[in-house]
Amino acid sequence: MLSEGTIIALSTPQGSGALGVIRISGSLAFEKTALFFVPKSNKKVVFTPKKAQLGEFRVGDEILDEVVLTSYVAPHSYTGEDCVELSCHGSPFILQQIIANYLKVGLLPAQPGEFTLRAYLNQKMDLSQSESVADIIASESEASHRVAIQQLRGGYSAEMENLRQDLIEFKALIELELDFSEEDVAFADLDKLRDLLTTVYQKIESLQQSFSYGNAIKKGVPVAIAGKPNVGKSSLLNALLDEEKAIVSTIPGTTRDAIEDVVVIEGIAFRLIDTAGLRKTEDVVEAIGIQKTREKVNQAAVLLYLYTSPCAIEEIVAELNSLYRPGLLLFLIENKIDLHQFQHNTELSGAIQKSITSSFQTKLGGISTLDKDSIDNLKKELAASIKSMKGDASAIITNSRHFYALKEAAESVKTVQEGLERKIPGDLLSIELKEAIFHIGTITGKIDLDEDILGTIFGRFCIGK
Amino acid sequence: MLSEGTIIALSTPQGSGALGVIRISGSLAFEKTALFFVPKSNKKVVFTPKKAQLGEFRVGDEILDEVVLTSYVAPHSYTGEDCVELSCHGSPFILQQIIANYLKVGLLPAQPGEFTLRAYLNQKMDLSQSESVADIIASESEASHRVAIQQLRGGYSAEMENLRQDLIEFKALIELELDFSEEDVAFADLDKLRDLLTTVYQKIESLQQSFSYGNAIKKGVPVAIAGKPNVGKSSLLNALLDEEKAIVSTIPGTTRDAIEDVVVIEGIAFRLIDTAGLRKTEDVVEAIGIQKTREKVNQAAVLLYLYTSPCAIEEIVAELNSLYRPGLLLFLIENKIDLHQFQHNTELSGAIQKSITSSFQTKLGGISTLDKDSIDNLKKELAASIKSMKGDASAIITNSRHFYALKEAAESVKTVQEGLERKIPGDLLSIELKEAIFHIGTITGKIDLDEDILGTIFGRFCIGK
Repeated sequence: MLSEGTIIALSTPQGSGALGVIRISGSLAFEKTALFFVPKSNKKVVFTPKKAQLGEFRVGDEILDEVVLTSYVAPHSYTGEDCVELSCHGSPFILQQIIANYLKVGLLPAQPGEFTLRAYLNQKMDLSQSESVADIIASESEASHRVAIQQLRGGYSAEMENLRQDLIEFKALIELELDFSEEDVAFADLDKLRDLLTTVYQKIESLQQSFSYGNAIKKGVPVAIAGKPNVGKSSLLNALLDEEKAIVSTIPGTTRDAIEDVVVIEGIAFRLIDTAGLRKTEDVVEAIGIQKTREKVNQAAVLLYLYTSPCAIEEIVAELNSLYRPGLLLFLIENKIDLHQFQHNTELSGAIQKSITSSFQTKLGGISTLDKDSIDNLKKELAASIKSMKGDASAIITNSRHFYALKEAAESVKTVQEGLERKIPGDLLSIELKEAIFHIGTITGKIDLDEDILGTIFGRFCIGK
Repeated sequence: MLSEGTIIALSTPQGSGALGVIRISGSLAFEKTALFFVPKSNKKVVFTPKKAQLGEFRVGDEILDEVVLTSYVAPHSYTGEDCVELSCHGSPFILQQIIANYLKVGLLPAQPGEFTLRAYLNQKMDLSQSESVADIIASESEASHRVAIQQLRGGYSAEMENLRQDLIEFKALIELELDFSEEDVAFADLDKLRDLLTTVYQKIESLQQSFSYGNAIKKGVPVAIAGKPNVGKSSLLNALLDEEKAIVSTIPGTTRDAIEDVVVIEGIAFRLIDTAGLRKTEDVVEAIGIQKTREKVNQAAVLLYLYTSPCAIEEIVAELNSLYRPGLLLFLIENKIDLHQFQHNTELSGAIQKSITSSFQTKLGGISTLDKDSIDNLKKELAASIKSMKGDASAIITNSRHFYALKEAAESVKTVQEGLERKIPGDLLSIELKEAIFHIGTITGKIDLDEDILGTIFGRFCIGK
């Protein structure tokens, strides 16, 4: 079976601390807890709902710890089962001993995400809400946190359910009213159906498109900083991070390892990647660095390409063309404008941009790492460029499982659209619609999912959640 | 003032996890908590004692997290003040945001141990109980944990208080009844006083003596493994640890860095220190290794000195004499007895022991790392040798502050004993007794301690406790 027995886990992070919380859930939660917990009153423990009580964790006569027990009676608990939380001293020795004693009397160690899996199986939350729990814990920025919380709160599920209901209604319509084999189908009806389907398709498409934004804010936007040697890549990294992370040196080729660090701008996390100077070299180690750079730029969503004025336009253009990848956003930045009375050479940047044959989406500008305002401006531009990806979707897709489900659904809807034009019989279209409904249903778990899929979903959780 | 305002801290370890618990304590705990916490019912929050309630942490309209709030109304809380615990998703981002929002409205970040300091100041526990809280969290073995729990439970405090009461009674006796300037003091009275004082002195002394055991189990017993090159020091370390921690090689001088690891035997932690071969060498790096060995042996409570049969007795004896330190327990071990039909050469070990001029406390034996039983025997001997240090004290001293307080008290009592013999007037002895009573009183905090001392005591706590 998917998840059986009464489970136990440490729910707080490993390590020493003031407190550590152990969670127990299942039909034997109270019975087994009572084997070791003795209330301060020394009477038999009573598991009053949502009551915190001080007591002792005793193994025989030996007192292992003074703990606070909070009990939650089914179904009014996180998992929907009888639940106990033991708040103990945050000693790894004590926590391990308490868990070991419960395992001895038959409790089972919880698998990653198993408490939340039970919450899902007991219909305390749907699947996309369950998934948001892991996202909430992993969120490192305001933007990703906000999307995860909205998903937990059910707004996202409601959007998915609306979409699914639209498809279910359409399927009913097509099954009841439409039979192209008979010639009495009014054109008006067909137009109406066509419009309905287009609306659904556009909804799915805009949700799908939100994934590039959702994914960027969830995982952090990968930003590669590149350019010829000595154009100030590491200095820009430092200026963005506001700390001395990379070794800055005026010797060309100082930076060999791709350094990665995170800066949060307007609530969005950017993963900054400094790269070795992009140039031909006899130095083997440096050559490896350059190869790594190309690899890093391939993973980036944004390329901050630095140059200084004057420069060899052809070389830069050649380099940029070689780094091109569809979807890569290019910031073509003249650095060290402090050498030119803080004036950005627009003639030069225009010339470079015109010469690039690849169809980069490009922003131009000039900065000086000595001028905080110019760095702040660059930060604003970076944040704005990501926010503009957000689009007008009713919800933000951050989960690749959901993205692929929507993609499958979109394909099915597309097939139905074509079938409608080709006057394919309603019962055949209905099969394709069922596919679309199924895929949307997998997002919130409205349909039965097999163990493998649930295992994959909950396997990425931490233990104790 | 010592500890003022309403304080807040993360009480669970740093890092991602299923849960994170934030603690708030002070007169404004409820008022400030209510600024952000909205119960599921959407009504105004009511702070019912020991009640867990689900709700939202809201900053304006934005929901930061779904949290469980448990409130403790003064004086029935850990600190004796109004207390709130917020159990949140274990996301570092969320936890940091919640704390930041409370700091903005005037809560203060708790200093290390400040919750427990308040518990002490509000007489929820005495000073030695407070100190045991940090020990409980830091305990890594059964033995150290047991001593800390006993201390938390107050048995230790009761012992100290008994001792202090004995001294107070004695002081009253001496002040009221004894005036040596008058000649009517019966010898019987003097004998009785002498006996009383001897009993108190012996109590203090046995408590003091328990410190070497207490300290050993608290910090782990440092055990140095030494011997000539290639006698199997690293192999013994591995055998004790039951894993491949050190690089074992038959090339003499392989081990250069002192490797340290912990093995728990019968609930007692031993910190094992492998050392470089103790020998003269031209190799500079190795020379540093040898110097380190001597330093490590100087820190050890137990020296496991390995040799093999046959061997150059004079060299070994010279080495052992040079490593001698009072109190260092020597295990003189013949290794590789598998080469001699698993027979320990008692003639050889006897000869070595006889030749040692230093007055080591010595145990003799033979082992083979190929013979698990011989290693298990050695482990048993190690545990037994530490347990024998325990003595018959009524409590185990693990805290060096307590040890030094007892030492001061012992010195004062000694002075009174001498004074008694020299028939010093009672009012003068009384002053010395006051000293002894003061020092015992500092252990449980019965007397007022200044801020510096309290700062030092609670400064070693973790934040959030």
